[in-house]
Amino acid sequence: MIYFRSDYSMGAHPKVLEALNRTNFEHSDGYSLDDHCFHAADMIKDMIKNPKAEVHFFAGGTPANFTCIAAFLRPHEAVLAPRSSHIYMHETGAIEAKGHRIINLDSPDGKIRPEQIETSLAEHEDEHMVWQKMIYISQSTESGTVYSKAEMAALSDLCRKNNMYLYVDGARLGAALTAENNDLTLPDLAELADAFYIGGTKNGALFGEAVVLTNPKLMPDFRYIMKQQAGLFAKGRLIGVQFEALLEDGLYFDLARNSNKLANRLRDGIAAKGHKFWVDSPTNQIFPIMPIKLVEKLEEKFFFYRWMPDDGKDVCIRLVTSWGSKDEDVDSFLADI
Amino acid sequence: MIYFRSDYSMGAHPKVLEALNRTNFEHSDGYSLDDHCFHAADMIKDMIKNPKAEVHFFAGGTPANFTCIAAFLRPHEAVLAPRSSHIYMHETGAIEAKGHRIINLDSPDGKIRPEQIETSLAEHEDEHMVWQKMIYISQSTESGTVYSKAEMAALSDLCRKNNMYLYVDGARLGAALTAENNDLTLPDLAELADAFYIGGTKNGALFGEAVVLTNPKLMPDFRYIMKQQAGLFAKGRLIGVQFEALLEDGLYFDLARNSNKLANRLRDGIAAKGHKFWVDSPTNQIFPIMPIKLVEKLEEKFFFYRWMPDDGKDVCIRLVTSWGSKDEDVDSFLADI
Amino acid sequence: MIYFRSDYSMGAHPKVLEALNRTNFEHSDGYSLDDHCFHAADMIKDMIKNPKAEVHFFAGGTPANFTCIAAFLRPHEAVLAPRSSHIYMHETGAIEAKGHRIINLDSPDGKIRPEQIETSLAEHEDEHMVWQKMIYISQSTESGTVYSKAEMAALSDLCRKNNMYLYVDGARLGAALTAENNDLTLPDLAELADAFYIGGTKNGALFGEAVVLTNPKLMPDFRYIMKQQAGLFAKGRLIGVQFEALLEDGLYFDLARNSNKLANRLRDGIAAKGHKFWVDSPTNQIFPIMPIKLVEKLEEKFFFYRWMPDDGKDVCIRLVTSWGSKDEDVDSFLADI
Amino acid sequence: MIYFRSDYSMGAHPKVLEALNRTNFEHSDGYSLDDHCFHAADMIKDMIKNPKAEVHFFAGGTPANFTCIAAFLRPHEAVLAPRSSHIYMHETGAIEAKGHRIINLDSPDGKIRPEQIETSLAEHEDEHMVWQKMIYISQSTESGTVYSKAEMAALSDLCRKNNMYLYVDGARLGAALTAENNDLTLPDLAELADAFYIGGTKNGALFGEAVVLTNPKLMPDFRYIMKQQAGLFAKGRLIGVQFEALLEDGLYFDLARNSNKLANRLRDGIAAKGHKFWVDSPTNQIFPIMPIKLVEKLEEKFFFYRWMPDDGKDVCIRLVTSWGSKDEDVDSFLADI
Repeated sequence: MIYFRSDYSMGAHPKVLEALNRTNFEHSDGYSLDDHCFHAADMIKDMIKNPKAEVHFFAGGTPANFTCIAAFLRPHEAVLAPRSSHIYMHETGAIEAKGHRIINLDSPDGKIRPEQIETSLAEHEDEHMVWQKMIYISQSTESGTVYSKAEMAALSDLCRKNNMYLYVDGARLGAALTAENNDLTLPDLAELADAFYIGGTKNGALFGEAVVLTNPKLMPDFRYIMKQQAGLFAKGRLIGVQFEALLEDGLYFDLARNSNKLANRLRDGIAAKGHKFWVDSPTNQIFPIMPIKLVEKLEEKFFFYRWMPDDGKDVCIRLVTSWGSKDEDVDSFLADI
Repeated sequence: MIYFRSDYSMGAHPKVLEALNRTNFEHSDGYSLDDHCFHAADMIKDMIKNPKAEVHFFAGGTPANFTCIAAFLRPHEAVLAPRSSHIYMHETGAIEAKGHRIINLDSPDGKIRPEQIETSLAEHEDEHMVWQKMIYISQSTESGTVYSKAEMAALSDLCRKNNMYLYVDGARLGAALTAENNDLTLPDLAELADAFYIGGTKNGALFGEAVVLTNPKLMPDFRYIMKQQAGLFAKGRLIGVQFEALLEDGLYFDLARNSNKLANRLRDGIAAKGHKFWVDSPTNQIFPIMPIKLVEKLEEKFFFYRWMPDDGKDVCIRLVTSWGSKDEDVDSFLADI
Repeated sequence: MIYFRSDYSMGAHPKVLEALNRTNFEHSDGYSLDDHCFHAADMIKDMIKNPKAEVHFFAGGTPANFTCIAAFLRPHEAVLAPRSSHIYMHETGAIEAKGHRIINLDSPDGKIRPEQIETSLAEHEDEHMVWQKMIYISQSTESGTVYSKAEMAALSDLCRKNNMYLYVDGARLGAALTAENNDLTLPDLAELADAFYIGGTKNGALFGEAVVLTNPKLMPDFRYIMKQQAGLFAKGRLIGVQFEALLEDGLYFDLARNSNKLANRLRDGIAAKGHKFWVDSPTNQIFPIMPIKLVEKLEEKFFFYRWMPDDGKDVCIRLVTSWGSKDEDVDSFLADI
Repeated sequence: MIYFRSDYSMGAHPKVLEALNRTNFEHSDGYSLDDHCFHAADMIKDMIKNPKAEVHFFAGGTPANFTCIAAFLRPHEAVLAPRSSHIYMHETGAIEAKGHRIINLDSPDGKIRPEQIETSLAEHEDEHMVWQKMIYISQSTESGTVYSKAEMAALSDLCRKNNMYLYVDGARLGAALTAENNDLTLPDLAELADAFYIGGTKNGALFGEAVVLTNPKLMPDFRYIMKQQAGLFAKGRLIGVQFEALLEDGLYFDLARNSNKLANRLRDGIAAKGHKFWVDSPTNQIFPIMPIKLVEKLEEKFFFYRWMPDDGKDVCIRLVTSWGSKDEDVDSFLADI
């Protein structure tokens, strides 16, 4: 079986694994208070050109998201997020379990727009209603789409005008930053967002996400909330080591570029056969709509998700490429359609 | 100024107040463990013809709602509710503060339908998503509308088939049960719902709501959760005494009938002048749409809410009648339009 | 039966009840946004000589306590409290239900001392431990004892040095302020505490507590948290009216003085018979230790709690006097021992 | 520097690392729904001779603890734990953040006794108090001590009589099961406890803990709570692979035996020099009390914690051995004292 099911089905990129092997017998302090974590944090601060930022390492995206929200918000404050977002759809109410409402906004392409935020803000009357304090978005989104620099800046402006925070879930940030036509750089993102994370799990690490806080208001006592929310990882060094390996010589971006390149090849090949797509996504997740018969045939050899219920004739599927996908996987798929 | 603003702007009906005065110097145990509460509970159990039900007295609707939800649900379980519902719109995220998601459903007339629940249930995939365990509705709704017996039974059936609970917020239950054409009786409600409350605050009491639990699964340790959530009222007797007075000789229903009757007179008179309504509501809240100029004029003498932003020409207002509204209030309003 | 069981077994003082009767048919806005609440708040701000304080009205002590704690603390912050305190012993984990630890400190006489706080602070190491942010005490305490001005000032100093908050539960504040030898005035308390409440339920009101915030850091968005935690009472006017009545011409203090006077008479009479006391309390709760046989006899005519398990020979009981206790109640008790 | 600071300062045992390397390029489903996790779970069910048990894999001990407690308890239910326990001392209030009180019990040697539980239960009066529903203990304890089979059985009996749950934190379960004179087997533990976990992080894994549920009441919807609490690890396979390696041919126990053996050598050597110990611990944590001067000297070459404040003359230190400690580390230490 050839895997186009997810970008976290394999272990780590060989260079990351090699770093873990090489450092295995080092002794270090726990909970990310070690030289590898310090070094990886410095690398990130250099990359975003912001020495005053704080970098915190998490073992996964869900704890990164809910720890940040628990740390940033007071009890009556809510977070605005696309209906398709990970925190709304696939974290079993983890945000509400911290006491906060998610106000979900329609997002046919995975993105939300300033007008939607403004409409929500206009509904606010008084202390009988939750207070909209934070926007949560993903870059790239759950639909594989990407916010342009102008789009991200518009959300950021709106937040600053309304005393809100902008948080960007970067589980697939590599794919976004290396997408064709993307014009948003990592320093741009760090400038526009109050907090975001650089995802490792879906781009070459065994596991690990690097949360970056740029707004000083969000920093006090962050490690307390991390520990309380299980965000502090005992052998934190493991995450530091992996990020050192990923960030050295731009490996992180090379891996993402590979994912995008193969997704593009899939997309172009599928389009050339006349199939349409549910959404136009320039990153490593694509959503072709194909006849059910063809999909059934493909399912014998390829592993992927049907993304929506079929309509009796066609069905939308999701194909995901990863750092470990190969040209021959794509060749094989294109040959079969 | 004549008040059509809310049904909780005055104190208590004279008979209720009299009962409080009469019993003022009695000593009694706290936290509703007193003879007045026991008696009022028995009166309710008689009315619903269910001696096995449990009755618990609360000081207000918001704590009644969130205590029930905190007591009934496990952490990953969510409640389905109309978008216009009190718990979604006007309790500042109280339900999420207990850790539970509200899945809000569109409800142009304040009511939700079984198909909407089924659509939501169909979206459930696995343990990455919250589990839909409970339906919250209001009778009458925030829009003044009423579920018929068939509509309530359909929701109840759906719940029982899917191992869900049906909870009915009865802040304005009196108005619903005495509405023209209503065919749902109190015993019907007790049979169809797993839990509901009989609202006193908006129908003649100083304050107080009687939560009724009919599903035995929801009963264990309920008073523990009440105490934790501030649902236990120190001088619980005060609520028992008020319900005794309200339920004696059907006063509760007489008061609600008065509200409805005056609302109906308002509605008919306004309709006779050719004004339309945002929604067709048979209870004590009506929502006429009137020219802004006329509304501005009325605001000089009457106190009511503009319910939505105007469209430059017309505006929807809410008129609420109560047990204390008088025929001359209505006459005066109708004379002025 | 003569009641020495609690100070909340009866309704309201006649003057309070009269005020409720007099204002019953007034229309007013809900949620304490009415003239009676505004006026009562002004009366309190005058009494504490602090026009910048905020006053918020609650229906009971438990919601006052947990709303304040939910509003004041971040998730990792804990509250230090006597083991015998109401929040630790008798609120069914309401504070933990808001996410916060209570660090309970031994308090044989109901009071805690600065040294205990310092010992706790000294144990704090790093982000793996909760952060001690707030001290909760009661005045008078659950044991009927009272902090002197010097004792209160020492706790206040300690808080300010350590960036902590001092919160004083004043469920029985009247009894404390009017106790013999008390040297702490209401303005002193307002100066020393960051927040406290003036209890009505146990001193002449039907129900109601007035939370006073003096530290401006604790004020932002307080009403949001109140609403979320059911602290906002629909007919808030009822509480405002009661506090107006209680605070006019010092009625609040007169009622407390009556309670204390009768408790003192009981105490002196009991001591004169040679009985000892569990703790030396100058307010309206006293704790004599008496032979079981005598207690059994007294229980036939008087209603009070046995406070601790007996030792086979003697048992500690609690006698509570209230604004409604009478000289003849005391005479009768003293005659019977 | 030679490390006696903790048992999680290094990476993984070579056999564990080798397994991760070997399986790195396998594709597998996420969230522990893969063959390695299924196989490791089966190995554990075989070891405890209970095919009906459920095994769930976590990335760390703190999320294992709080997920279990969140899943097992209703809002008003509390957990009894030693004051020195990890959940009370070193998880920043994570349990309270889920809404539950920890009732902490004195535990000079890290263990609690049935009498302490009974004393706590006897204090329970009614619904104004939290309900004691669960006992949390560690095996071995934070003080390196071990519950005997009789001691564990006594706690288990008490739980079953009182409808409580017994949960055993096994972060250092290997050290306990292989301690000298230990008479409690893994099947015994599985029989006596309602839930426990087998710790990997501190005994040879990079990370990972295996939670075992034996009481069927605790099983429903456990994976929902796991996901909500970030207990589900995206590449769950990594934990399954590590446990396969650890459990094969008893490696897990061999590693623990090595830790204990070296700790015993340290203990005997230190005792032979006449030093006393704070507590008598038969596992891989020992707590000698030594002159400050000597400790200062040792700190130049060895890395360990001072466990308590010194008394001006002596100080208690903690020495921890691990699977990676070597005989020459011990030789060196003993030579230097």
